[in-house]
Amino acid sequence: MKIVIIGGVAGGASAAARARRLSEDAEIILLERGPEPSFANCGLPYYVGGLIESRDKLLVAPAERLRARYRLDVRTGNEVIRIDRDEQTVTIRDHADGRVYEETYDKLIIATGASAFKPPTPGIDGDRVLSLRDLPDADRLHARVTANAKPGKALRVAVIGAGFIGIEVVENMVHRNIETTLVERGDQILPPWDREMISPLIELLHQRGVQVRLNDSVTSFEDTGEELVVHLQSGETLRADFAVVAIGVRPENSLAIAAGLKCGKGGGIQTNEHMQTNDPNVYAVGDVAEVRDAVTGEPTQIPLAGPANRQGRIAADHIFGRDSIYRGTQGTAIVGVFGHAAAMTGHSEKVLVRSGRAYEKIYIHPADHAGYYPGATAMSLKLLFDPSDGKILGAQAVGINGVDKRIDVIAVAIQARMTVYDLEEVELCYAPQYGSAKDPINMAGFVASSVLRGDQPVMHSHDLNMPSDSNDRFILDVRTPTEFDAGHIAAATNVPLDELRDRLDELPRDRVIAAYCKVGQRGYMATRLLAQKGFEVENLSGGFTTYERAKH
Amino acid sequence: MKIVIIGGVAGGASAAARARRLSEDAEIILLERGPEPSFANCGLPYYVGGLIESRDKLLVAPAERLRARYRLDVRTGNEVIRIDRDEQTVTIRDHADGRVYEETYDKLIIATGASAFKPPTPGIDGDRVLSLRDLPDADRLHARVTANAKPGKALRVAVIGAGFIGIEVVENMVHRNIETTLVERGDQILPPWDREMISPLIELLHQRGVQVRLNDSVTSFEDTGEELVVHLQSGETLRADFAVVAIGVRPENSLAIAAGLKCGKGGGIQTNEHMQTNDPNVYAVGDVAEVRDAVTGEPTQIPLAGPANRQGRIAADHIFGRDSIYRGTQGTAIVGVFGHAAAMTGHSEKVLVRSGRAYEKIYIHPADHAGYYPGATAMSLKLLFDPSDGKILGAQAVGINGVDKRIDVIAVAIQARMTVYDLEEVELCYAPQYGSAKDPINMAGFVASSVLRGDQPVMHSHDLNMPSDSNDRFILDVRTPTEFDAGHIAAATNVPLDELRDRLDELPRDRVIAAYCKVGQRGYMATRLLAQKGFEVENLSGGFTTYERAKH
Repeated sequence: MKIVIIGGVAGGASAAARARRLSEDAEIILLERGPEPSFANCGLPYYVGGLIESRDKLLVAPAERLRARYRLDVRTGNEVIRIDRDEQTVTIRDHADGRVYEETYDKLIIATGASAFKPPTPGIDGDRVLSLRDLPDADRLHARVTANAKPGKALRVAVIGAGFIGIEVVENMVHRNIETTLVERGDQILPPWDREMISPLIELLHQRGVQVRLNDSVTSFEDTGEELVVHLQSGETLRADFAVVAIGVRPENSLAIAAGLKCGKGGGIQTNEHMQTNDPNVYAVGDVAEVRDAVTGEPTQIPLAGPANRQGRIAADHIFGRDSIYRGTQGTAIVGVFGHAAAMTGHSEKVLVRSGRAYEKIYIHPADHAGYYPGATAMSLKLLFDPSDGKILGAQAVGINGVDKRIDVIAVAIQARMTVYDLEEVELCYAPQYGSAKDPINMAGFVASSVLRGDQPVMHSHDLNMPSDSNDRFILDVRTPTEFDAGHIAAATNVPLDELRDRLDELPRDRVIAAYCKVGQRGYMATRLLAQKGFEVENLSGGFTTYERAKH
Repeated sequence: MKIVIIGGVAGGASAAARARRLSEDAEIILLERGPEPSFANCGLPYYVGGLIESRDKLLVAPAERLRARYRLDVRTGNEVIRIDRDEQTVTIRDHADGRVYEETYDKLIIATGASAFKPPTPGIDGDRVLSLRDLPDADRLHARVTANAKPGKALRVAVIGAGFIGIEVVENMVHRNIETTLVERGDQILPPWDREMISPLIELLHQRGVQVRLNDSVTSFEDTGEELVVHLQSGETLRADFAVVAIGVRPENSLAIAAGLKCGKGGGIQTNEHMQTNDPNVYAVGDVAEVRDAVTGEPTQIPLAGPANRQGRIAADHIFGRDSIYRGTQGTAIVGVFGHAAAMTGHSEKVLVRSGRAYEKIYIHPADHAGYYPGATAMSLKLLFDPSDGKILGAQAVGINGVDKRIDVIAVAIQARMTVYDLEEVELCYAPQYGSAKDPINMAGFVASSVLRGDQPVMHSHDLNMPSDSNDRFILDVRTPTEFDAGHIAAATNVPLDELRDRLDELPRDRVIAAYCKVGQRGYMATRLLAQKGFEVENLSGGFTTYERAKH
């Protein structure tokens, strides 16, 4: 068995190592056009920012080790320029000496990944316009950020694109004391998340001195020799020493297309559940492959490191006759910025809206651990679920501590096809420094289940802001007068929860009452109380906290 | 509907609040014999230690708030002294004035909790021998630890019992600079865990100056007037200013027994899945109730705060005609000590051995996040599973960061009846500061699955130490010579993994080869390699790291 693998990072390296564990006799050739196989892609921003001090740290499995331990024929600086499926050969250029040669294969694994998308913006190919996708990119950017600024002046950068990499680059630029402006075409940062969940992070960027320009984009880059002038659609002009363009990635599919392999709408190579392309001797894994959405079963394009590794393993398994199956990608992701984290799994609300799928949602704002133990911090958690059976469709969380834990738990719950009723019952670790006896996960389950059981009709900021006649709600703020005076929904009437039973005659019986508090808990109690007293009442999910964030 | 609840902490308070949300009209009487309802039981050690500075922080739902918000008839200092099930009355003593009176009930919820077990050791009732179970206990202990020691002398404490509370007390005593000796009857601390998992924490206690006495117990306490002399079974004598006895809890079942309610072997009141006792008008929730083991379905006694809260909710639901069902307790627990954590869920190995159930196990020692990102720390994870179908039976983890997260994920997996094969596929949050592209959970799944698939026959320290003739293994250390020289299994031969292919002729073909490395990963590769070359080979799960810990 002779296996040729194109691309030596996550998916390719995993496939190679797995193949060797399955067969000592196979010939395994790992072709990597870059200088190093198996580098830590996700570490590049932190190397640029200086948090990872040594470049060697990024080389998680150096070529020599792959050779010695796995007896892989690792060829760095070797780029495949053509696949001939009929002959089962690849044509390779060795960048060291320019030699072009052929290799035959029994099985071919394409793990070419995705490359930074560069639109045809004038000036985008200039020296001062960088991207961050591979080691050479990182080396170039590292050189820029460690270069001396003019005496008395800080370096200035324009980061274009507020996705994962854009945000990580911003954090690391600030870490280098570089004056940073972030430009994003959309109306929010971190597009995979829903806007109201992510708005606190924009505030955080402001606090750290980052200039944020939403709803704007670059029309041209102009290198004056002295500096880079970035012209924006809005008419604004940014002056910077350099720019980093991080507006998304595209599957590196040119070899595959030229070889007649089928690609999907997003450009990814289509595969079956064994990661096999339309040619049974050719597999595709990682960012270059189209995958199945684990929630809907639809084809999708989600570039993530964990799935890439698993796909590589599965392709190798299948080559050696094993029935391993890729279950699809559910989009579990996390990004850290200035000590805060945003995490998500499954579908966002915007994706659900787009797909036309029925859903319900709830928001909670619990503490990461027992409030009586020092150091508790608030997190925000949004849970999306099927209104008919409570099946969990997605979740998002933002906060300082414990965000990854809660999303991991829900990620497993989604994989297990669990419902919000199951979240009520999960039994999680509890000691006061780690969680609460009613963990945020239980709380999310309680709230969502109470909505589905009809115990707690909910409404959302969006409903309140509807200008239609359907919005003749009586808005009831059940917080304390002090809280009310510090800021409230414009038309609200304040009756604190603890006085509510004695002041029922102040409430209308001919209108829907929209109750709210700070985070939704007192609003829930008010909703229960009023409903039992014959009022028609709904609770504003997530309370004033979510309302304020949805406004921005 | 008139509901009387005996006990106002976790289970009782949850039942009361839930009952009110379900019925504005119910009369709800919450009887608490202590001074406060709903105090933070799990925070007591940290209040004693000074980490929680204000006692008020422990009062999570003060009586006044429960009255105002939930219209509960809260009566603190009121102790139930008799239940009359025929008459449906309870007899109550008001400690404020000594008055004894009766209340009728339609439904009664017993949430009396568990009390600290005190064996009939001579001197155990002395003033210098304390326990830590409720607020008055905490007040007494707080007074002791903040009292002045003799000039120039530190206070000294003997902590008896190394369970959750004992260990938390030890940490907090050290935090108060009190000279601490820990006495435990068993051969390990934290008995719910398996011994080899917990041994690093004993080392940690030593490092923090704690004297640890295992396999020893107290024969008598002797108060000399000046100090407390603690006489041990071993003959040793400890001199201390006071002792804290934390050798377990017993259900507070005396009222229930006197009333003819059925109790189980462990003393807990027997209930059905709605938390109903053998009297349909009487419910039992929390530490006083016997519960079903969620893994085996067998009755058991596991005092935990999360389950207590859920049981209270379920009892209230059932009273109001809802079909809520308690799914059983799976024993998810965590304890923190000096910045380290030990967490577990499901069954320990010792429980599996005792029950005679077939199981397999694996150990891994991964980093909590990507090794190339600063601050990664090692954790140890043990996974127990059914050898026939891979169903997860239990897990334990010990380390500094991310321990709670991994056990929470496995706790949900157990609830979902997942297998080790499912753990291979779970898609968790990954960015280098939070995890790895192959998360420890995935790694545990990979290793356990490879064992079940026959890719990686494993053996354990116990097998190596068997003196029988079945132990004619050739022990192969595949680490580097430097690692080998720093310490290895006595009879081992060193052939580094990267040289193994070229040195096969040094290995026997007539004996089983036991391969090992530091944590099991290189041993796995060696096992794959040698098996394919026709050797009979097994990998030592968890490597030399687990081997060393199992020795102690």
